[in-house]
Amino acid sequence: MIANRQIAFAARPEGRPEADTFTVREAPMPVLEAGEILCRNLWLSVDPYLRLKMHDRESYTPPLQIGETIPGRSVAEIVETRADGFSRGDLVAIAGGWQDFVAVSATAVKRLPPRTSRPTSYLGPLGMTGETDYAGLLEIGKPKPGETLVVSAAAGAVGGLVGQIGRIKGCRVVGVAGSQEKCRFVTEELKFDACVNYRAPDFARALKEACPSGVDIYFDNVGGPVTEAVLPLVNNFARVPLCGLISQYDGQQAGDPRALAELMRWILVRRITIRGFIVYDIAPNYPEFESEMTKWLDEGLVVSREHLSEGFDSIVPAFLGLLGGKNTGKSIVRIAEPSPLA
Amino acid sequence: MIANRQIAFAARPEGRPEADTFTVREAPMPVLEAGEILCRNLWLSVDPYLRLKMHDRESYTPPLQIGETIPGRSVAEIVETRADGFSRGDLVAIAGGWQDFVAVSATAVKRLPPRTSRPTSYLGPLGMTGETDYAGLLEIGKPKPGETLVVSAAAGAVGGLVGQIGRIKGCRVVGVAGSQEKCRFVTEELKFDACVNYRAPDFARALKEACPSGVDIYFDNVGGPVTEAVLPLVNNFARVPLCGLISQYDGQQAGDPRALAELMRWILVRRITIRGFIVYDIAPNYPEFESEMTKWLDEGLVVSREHLSEGFDSIVPAFLGLLGGKNTGKSIVRIAEPSPLA
Repeated sequence: MIANRQIAFAARPEGRPEADTFTVREAPMPVLEAGEILCRNLWLSVDPYLRLKMHDRESYTPPLQIGETIPGRSVAEIVETRADGFSRGDLVAIAGGWQDFVAVSATAVKRLPPRTSRPTSYLGPLGMTGETDYAGLLEIGKPKPGETLVVSAAAGAVGGLVGQIGRIKGCRVVGVAGSQEKCRFVTEELKFDACVNYRAPDFARALKEACPSGVDIYFDNVGGPVTEAVLPLVNNFARVPLCGLISQYDGQQAGDPRALAELMRWILVRRITIRGFIVYDIAPNYPEFESEMTKWLDEGLVVSREHLSEGFDSIVPAFLGLLGGKNTGKSIVRIAEPSPLA
Repeated sequence: MIANRQIAFAARPEGRPEADTFTVREAPMPVLEAGEILCRNLWLSVDPYLRLKMHDRESYTPPLQIGETIPGRSVAEIVETRADGFSRGDLVAIAGGWQDFVAVSATAVKRLPPRTSRPTSYLGPLGMTGETDYAGLLEIGKPKPGETLVVSAAAGAVGGLVGQIGRIKGCRVVGVAGSQEKCRFVTEELKFDACVNYRAPDFARALKEACPSGVDIYFDNVGGPVTEAVLPLVNNFARVPLCGLISQYDGQQAGDPRALAELMRWILVRRITIRGFIVYDIAPNYPEFESEMTKWLDEGLVVSREHLSEGFDSIVPAFLGLLGGKNTGKSIVRIAEPSPLA
């Protein structure tokens, strides 16, 4: 009998999660109900927002409960179906979680195109990551040709895509990342106009030099000191889509006690708009997203780097590496091969 | 020969302005050029934003320079004209400044209706104050019937009007003000649904009780601790028009060093929009403002309380009282009587 390996939430971390935040267990295979599909996860997405869910407090989704299987998007292969219109071996993108097998409602799956050559793109540019970027930048950032877009966590999955979309929309695109090597990746592979290392001692000056016309859009994935450095550079009527706050997910650090007043002053005198968003809120406004992104990928206008790890035992290390700033590109773990059918 | 009394900026204040922040002087009467109108100020508006202009740093308008006549809106009477279509004795609303006489371009005056019974309304609900409220609430607050609107500085000119407009739009309206007496004024005269005294020890609890369905719109005039108390109560997708920050105009106080991170977290997880604005940016989107507000005043749906002071020597005390939270309603100083012509 095949067991279903799962990674569950073992203990709420204080600060940065560690290996013992998680536990591996074996569960029985899910039993299908009518209208459901049994899927075998092939590729898992690991994402920073999971850290936010580990706090026992309100967020945009309920907190993770101890013992809960860690959630996350996956690309999976259909193993068995009790729903019409699906076949064994079809590839689907689902909320698969950190486990081998999962039963999902047929209404909650996204079919991948048959024989797609890029299944993992449906976890990256063609998946939730891409939708987040596309909808957040267009809906809140409102990019116009010639404007300057600054993107934090630019070497990450979200930031890297946002900048490339901004460039397509005609913006000067400046990334912020955590090492010289990441910055090189961002400018050389992702073709940002510039990228600044926030760990370098002259960060604030370098950022200012990279933005000679100021900042019109700041797509924020990190919060904290990077955000405080960008704010003095923003132009009147700047837009700040707030997508993530990875710098404070491990616990909110005490900062400059005048920082809030300073932020409010910038918002007022420069008439800034800051808006937090979650992809589900605004993606429905952009039905053209998938066809547009597919075209950009086909034309090579958008490049997607993957940080690919292999094997079930790599899931937790991939996630910890992501939080530690060690991964470049979209963090994906392959836990099984597609069957020859697919 | 008639001299022109002026109040000029004498010294940049540290903290709260005092009488010696200003100096009174006599200047020669302005000499009219073609296309200009000589006006005698009758009623002056004194406004909190002037405090922001006293800092020697960037704001939405250039800082006040030492020796500059203090600017401000006024209702004035035309004394002499070198422009077509104006007559002596006509009343106009202008950028008159704290002085008896001023020469203004005919293109920069707003004519009051002949024989209007409420000239000072053109400094309040029908003037820049009203436009600020109307445009800011509609453009950014986007009020919907049944939503809860919280307004800070609710006994002030801006806050008092915002709440009344929100009530007309069908919102539950909750004010925040600095004394029990002001709160009574806000609920009894302005007909807010509730008003909470932020100086009372149980402020946070009372605010929460006044907002049983949470807060959908927070129209902020003050910043600081009041804003920090409102944020935990906001609902998903709340809108925060940021109109003023009077609590920090005297200098930014050190606050809780975690407050910025906490604000960013609320913005993200509740998908809040915060947007700073200045009336000039958005008022042009609302050409119906004046006719709508006139109708509301005529029907008694909007009430405008004035804090009226008498005489040129009352200008500075009225302004200092405004900053000290001593004034209720729109602060206006009458410095001359209309001539019998008017």
